[in-house]
Amino acid sequence: MTNKVKIAIDAMGGDKSPKKVIEGIKISLKSNLENFFYLYGDENLLKKEVSKNKLLAQHCEIINANNVILDHESPLAAAKRGKDTSMWKTIESLKEKKAHISLSAGNTGALLVISRLLLNTIEGINKPALAALWPNKNDMSIVLDLGANIECDEKNLTDFACMGSALFKSLFQIRKPKIALLNVGLEEIKGNNILKKTSTILKNNSEKNFEFCGYIEGNHIMDGNTDVIVTDGFTGNIALKTAEGTANFITENLKISLSNVSKLLSYMSLKKFKKKLDPRKYNGAIFLGLESPVVKSHGGTDSIGFAHSIDVCNKIVRADLIQKIKSNLITVDA
Amino acid sequence: MTNKVKIAIDAMGGDKSPKKVIEGIKISLKSNLENFFYLYGDENLLKKEVSKNKLLAQHCEIINANNVILDHESPLAAAKRGKDTSMWKTIESLKEKKAHISLSAGNTGALLVISRLLLNTIEGINKPALAALWPNKNDMSIVLDLGANIECDEKNLTDFACMGSALFKSLFQIRKPKIALLNVGLEEIKGNNILKKTSTILKNNSEKNFEFCGYIEGNHIMDGNTDVIVTDGFTGNIALKTAEGTANFITENLKISLSNVSKLLSYMSLKKFKKKLDPRKYNGAIFLGLESPVVKSHGGTDSIGFAHSIDVCNKIVRADLIQKIKSNLITVDA
Repeated sequence: MTNKVKIAIDAMGGDKSPKKVIEGIKISLKSNLENFFYLYGDENLLKKEVSKNKLLAQHCEIINANNVILDHESPLAAAKRGKDTSMWKTIESLKEKKAHISLSAGNTGALLVISRLLLNTIEGINKPALAALWPNKNDMSIVLDLGANIECDEKNLTDFACMGSALFKSLFQIRKPKIALLNVGLEEIKGNNILKKTSTILKNNSEKNFEFCGYIEGNHIMDGNTDVIVTDGFTGNIALKTAEGTANFITENLKISLSNVSKLLSYMSLKKFKKKLDPRKYNGAIFLGLESPVVKSHGGTDSIGFAHSIDVCNKIVRADLIQKIKSNLITVDA
Repeated sequence: MTNKVKIAIDAMGGDKSPKKVIEGIKISLKSNLENFFYLYGDENLLKKEVSKNKLLAQHCEIINANNVILDHESPLAAAKRGKDTSMWKTIESLKEKKAHISLSAGNTGALLVISRLLLNTIEGINKPALAALWPNKNDMSIVLDLGANIECDEKNLTDFACMGSALFKSLFQIRKPKIALLNVGLEEIKGNNILKKTSTILKNNSEKNFEFCGYIEGNHIMDGNTDVIVTDGFTGNIALKTAEGTANFITENLKISLSNVSKLLSYMSLKKFKKKLDPRKYNGAIFLGLESPVVKSHGGTDSIGFAHSIDVCNKIVRADLIQKIKSNLITVDA
């Protein structure tokens, strides 16, 4: 098992689990045999599924967990009764250094709280952040924080910039990612004092591990000129969900407007369109700043989306993300 | 001129002005003869255009202004040299009670600064807000603030709720608009203290002039279940621009993906789609909280979009928006 990337998986989290989890692992094994999976969940159920496929059985170890954290459970309630759940045990395996990274499609709030309870933060970081892939005209960028921290100061935003740049390097092999701060205008006088202070810090520390490009407005997130977009968790969450809502609204309206005939005729080209913007390609939010990375798959994704998240896990471990974050950090005077 | 709605227009602001302004007025006169327009700008140019059309000449008075505020001028620089500009004179006509309302497609920042310089706020309001129409599944809702105020407290957000509800009533003849606060979750514990305090105030004052529906997340803005969505100017600006960016990104990708054949075939249905989501229908942001309403047309809109803004001006004056705001206000203990 040397050189294997060891991934702890909450096999019960998200819709249609563990089926989609098992199918996702099977898909990932087709192109990549270097991962080993610890599956946490209902032992009998998982054994039955895994034993059907020899390759799968060779690459998985099953560990029983009697309970599952539900999607609508409050994070604190989930954490309180959590110890014998698949999610808790998955994160615990990181604490015990059994696995390099963990992956769950379960309740996001509970995952953040349990991860913070069980894992230490990287030295120098006091607020871990949730980062995700965001499609753009060229390929994709990383946006963080997406909701882990409602209020952030200049030290937190600077940490997010350093962590986001380390993540971008890990996923895309770019030496100096382009970083920008989300703001309501491009001029230096725009925004609140925290943004202005962060801008000064990043400007003074640019050119080492990243290139600081100043401010970016919401309508330019998808232009493809910026690799990492940094914001506080409140703004990032509103931006992400507003973008999701807008995308859904437009595609719904498009479906209604297309008559049946043209629907059929444009089927092929719409398929091309959908393929490019397939949300499964962007599946996988990464909780950054803890001693081990915790990856969150979208609860509603399917096995293909789950396989994409496994790929993200593999890249993060192979690139030694945690080490990259440590060497990226900037000291901010309190 | 009794019973006329008197609209002061900055005839030089925005792209392709004064041509689109004149054409916009002509379009509005086809369905509505009860408006009278004061046009501020280059007298010779405007006289030449207006004199071509008898109906137009009857409904317009031209007042010369030698200068124009440019689109990329900083608001403060614009305000400093502003006195002989079409925008300044337009707003000044409100101060002099010559017009009921003003309309400009020029530089937004300059318009906000000049309006605040020349006009008093409504008694009890210390931060005016920028509100706009936002399309949703049923029709449209109002979102505010969209960028006039970067930092807001619970009194400001409460004022925005009262002003937004008065505006919605004025435009759509709804007795009790449904109001929600933009937040990162629906539970009472979500968000910062200012949101929690505002939520309590609105809950205690609900059922009089509006129905308070609690929190709303970014992905539900367009669901059509809420009439007025309240947020601070920073978050509102990020949400609006992210939605614009997402909509552009999707429609651009759609155009690229459609082959020429299917482009032709789906032309008719895409036309229907575009008609429903025509941004010109949502043209016109309203600066609320001053003694007179100031309407901002999108700089890049055409004459049809400008005519929609004129329609918004007419409705606001007819419905006596300022009086509605005054009687809607809630006293917030400091």
